[in-house]
Amino acid sequence: MNILITGFDPFGGESVNPSWLAAERLDGSRIDGHTLVAGRLPTEFGRALETLRALVERHNPCLVIAVGQAGGRDRISLERVAINIDDARIPDNAGRQPIDAPIDPDGEAAYFSGLPIKAMLHALQQAGIPAEVSNSAGTFVCNHVFYGLMTLCRSRPGLRGGFIHIPYLPGQAVAHPGKASMALDDIVRALTLCVQVALQTGQDLKIAAGTEC
Amino acid sequence: MNILITGFDPFGGESVNPSWLAAERLDGSRIDGHTLVAGRLPTEFGRALETLRALVERHNPCLVIAVGQAGGRDRISLERVAINIDDARIPDNAGRQPIDAPIDPDGEAAYFSGLPIKAMLHALQQAGIPAEVSNSAGTFVCNHVFYGLMTLCRSRPGLRGGFIHIPYLPGQAVAHPGKASMALDDIVRALTLCVQVALQTGQDLKIAAGTEC
Amino acid sequence: MNILITGFDPFGGESVNPSWLAAERLDGSRIDGHTLVAGRLPTEFGRALETLRALVERHNPCLVIAVGQAGGRDRISLERVAINIDDARIPDNAGRQPIDAPIDPDGEAAYFSGLPIKAMLHALQQAGIPAEVSNSAGTFVCNHVFYGLMTLCRSRPGLRGGFIHIPYLPGQAVAHPGKASMALDDIVRALTLCVQVALQTGQDLKIAAGTEC
Amino acid sequence: MNILITGFDPFGGESVNPSWLAAERLDGSRIDGHTLVAGRLPTEFGRALETLRALVERHNPCLVIAVGQAGGRDRISLERVAINIDDARIPDNAGRQPIDAPIDPDGEAAYFSGLPIKAMLHALQQAGIPAEVSNSAGTFVCNHVFYGLMTLCRSRPGLRGGFIHIPYLPGQAVAHPGKASMALDDIVRALTLCVQVALQTGQDLKIAAGTEC
Repeated sequence: MNILITGFDPFGGESVNPSWLAAERLDGSRIDGHTLVAGRLPTEFGRALETLRALVERHNPCLVIAVGQAGGRDRISLERVAINIDDARIPDNAGRQPIDAPIDPDGEAAYFSGLPIKAMLHALQQAGIPAEVSNSAGTFVCNHVFYGLMTLCRSRPGLRGGFIHIPYLPGQAVAHPGKASMALDDIVRALTLCVQVALQTGQDLKIAAGTEC
Repeated sequence: MNILITGFDPFGGESVNPSWLAAERLDGSRIDGHTLVAGRLPTEFGRALETLRALVERHNPCLVIAVGQAGGRDRISLERVAINIDDARIPDNAGRQPIDAPIDPDGEAAYFSGLPIKAMLHALQQAGIPAEVSNSAGTFVCNHVFYGLMTLCRSRPGLRGGFIHIPYLPGQAVAHPGKASMALDDIVRALTLCVQVALQTGQDLKIAAGTEC
Repeated sequence: MNILITGFDPFGGESVNPSWLAAERLDGSRIDGHTLVAGRLPTEFGRALETLRALVERHNPCLVIAVGQAGGRDRISLERVAINIDDARIPDNAGRQPIDAPIDPDGEAAYFSGLPIKAMLHALQQAGIPAEVSNSAGTFVCNHVFYGLMTLCRSRPGLRGGFIHIPYLPGQAVAHPGKASMALDDIVRALTLCVQVALQTGQDLKIAAGTEC
Repeated sequence: MNILITGFDPFGGESVNPSWLAAERLDGSRIDGHTLVAGRLPTEFGRALETLRALVERHNPCLVIAVGQAGGRDRISLERVAINIDDARIPDNAGRQPIDAPIDPDGEAAYFSGLPIKAMLHALQQAGIPAEVSNSAGTFVCNHVFYGLMTLCRSRPGLRGGFIHIPYLPGQAVAHPGKASMALDDIVRALTLCVQVALQTGQDLKIAAGTEC
């Protein structure tokens, strides 16, 4: 069986996107009898989701982990929930900037991740990798893809999926005083662990990882 | 017509909760022909919502704005979405600490705020009050009340509602190095403005206030 | 006897500088038998210090508190030490941008504040105003004035002085997402308290207010 | 000729100190004809400096770079200035907690680093490693050692020295939500570069790296 790991094109003035660099590094590797396939998504509303759907059609994965850059976050962010709205602070790579537009006019306000985010959190922390559960994937193309992926999972029995945000690479953080970063090796190790946990976990762990606000 | 403004009991080791101090200051004031009624909610899962429902029964408001303390945030946070999950990092005031429990097993994953948060954002910023749209109200009692309030609004035609997070007061921030605060006068002025905007706004403004992550 | 409180002109794209607005509010007020005189300094290397020296000549104060805006800080910052270097990240209001130039080629590397910063910290916190001791006043015009002031104090027996940084006003923070602010009323109250403490304190308190880094 | 790189014992509840782990990794390596010697300092006021002086006596280095952990900083911090004060927020590893005590009663208020911190900043950023000039090394044992080292350099012609703060390791940041980290490989690479730049640089670069506050 295939596992699809997607990353994005660079956006917002960056020359690289760590999500694609990490996905690319995992392409072709094997985990617990599964093959990882890397997919590259344009950072564009609409077209990112079309590309994702085509990748799912072509590779028929049992698991999709979409990965995105969260510039400024200091640890691996396991996203809990995708919301049904596009609200772009900056234009996407095609110059479009939707404001308060639903991603799916017939969809629910949100869908929860299909990944065992608490078990992943536990495994990452045990491995010495800083991680957190996040309650917002933003309102840009990352959340757009996350919401679309969860819609796709609902229509394809046997498909599980979710979204993981990752920090800037050190080389990117050079230009962003005050912002954290994470080495690509650690990001790749984190994503590998997350795939393993997803494959091995039925019922997610019940460990507190909430926030007051 | 009545407008209900709720605040919470202190929690997490604090001796005051600015949300209740602000609501109390607004109690009995009149805005555009409406009377503000302040309600105090216990910071307890379950009982907070029962108290909210009883207040709505008693006062039959056309508008409910629930307010909560967001310790560490630096501006008025207009919450966009409530999610259907309780995940308590710390126990509530009754000692309960639910983990990954749905608030309403029959509810959707989330509900959007019924407030014109973009028009409110615009009005607050014009008035010189720092404000933001927030995409997560957390997973503690604030989000719990927000989700329950939006459920209530769906069952009571004519009732609109939403949630606003506010910073620590200066006196609280004394004990929290590195955390921002806002003067109570400014918080009260902000909430007054928000009520006025809610009363005067039909269709919300379309202004960008999203985040990439 | 006179007490001199100085503030700066706006800089860095701001239309106001809270340090001058606060100083202006204190002008002419009387504290413990002393009269407060407000002085406005240009945000310019060199000329700011010339203006300060002229104000000291004219008003012959026993105490000088120079105040400056610290955009992004979340509390009253009692500066501990001025260092003998100008290193401007941005040009000053006259377009000058010195890099690694000594303020006084014959001066020591640094001078400590002449204010009882620990007693001030204690008084501010008791009054519910967030405050901290800061170990760096930066390397721009604030530190430049602070260093020049301490040089002046060494040459004028009976003159005490020091520097206090204050946060953005709320109206400024509107344009700075993620940055804290403080109400002007609280800033004025804080500076008044600091003057009182300076007048009443001989030996400073010994309370820990350091940092590991 | 020898180059001395020092790191500290763990403190503040940590089980490792990245400064020692990095120094240890560099022990015995050769850079531009020099041999690196790693020295481990206790995180104790007084005894840390005695240990440093003994190491300098024994190895007679031409260059000393003292390294310390700056928990929460997000990049390599090239320290500009050491101040003549101990002000401990927490007790050191021997239980001592000096408050506002001079490190050297006969010393000046501060000494500037003897390292070419701007050339180092430039080299690190060119190599893709996030770095900054810092204007405060705190008031704990790191600053204590830095100040003592600069005093030592003044009495030993031919000895240059300075201080570099480094972030938490990823494994430490697991337990510190909201705090950044840096991989040990990147820290070691950064320190190696800093040594090379120090050996090759006579006059430091004039590039702006200051702060307004």
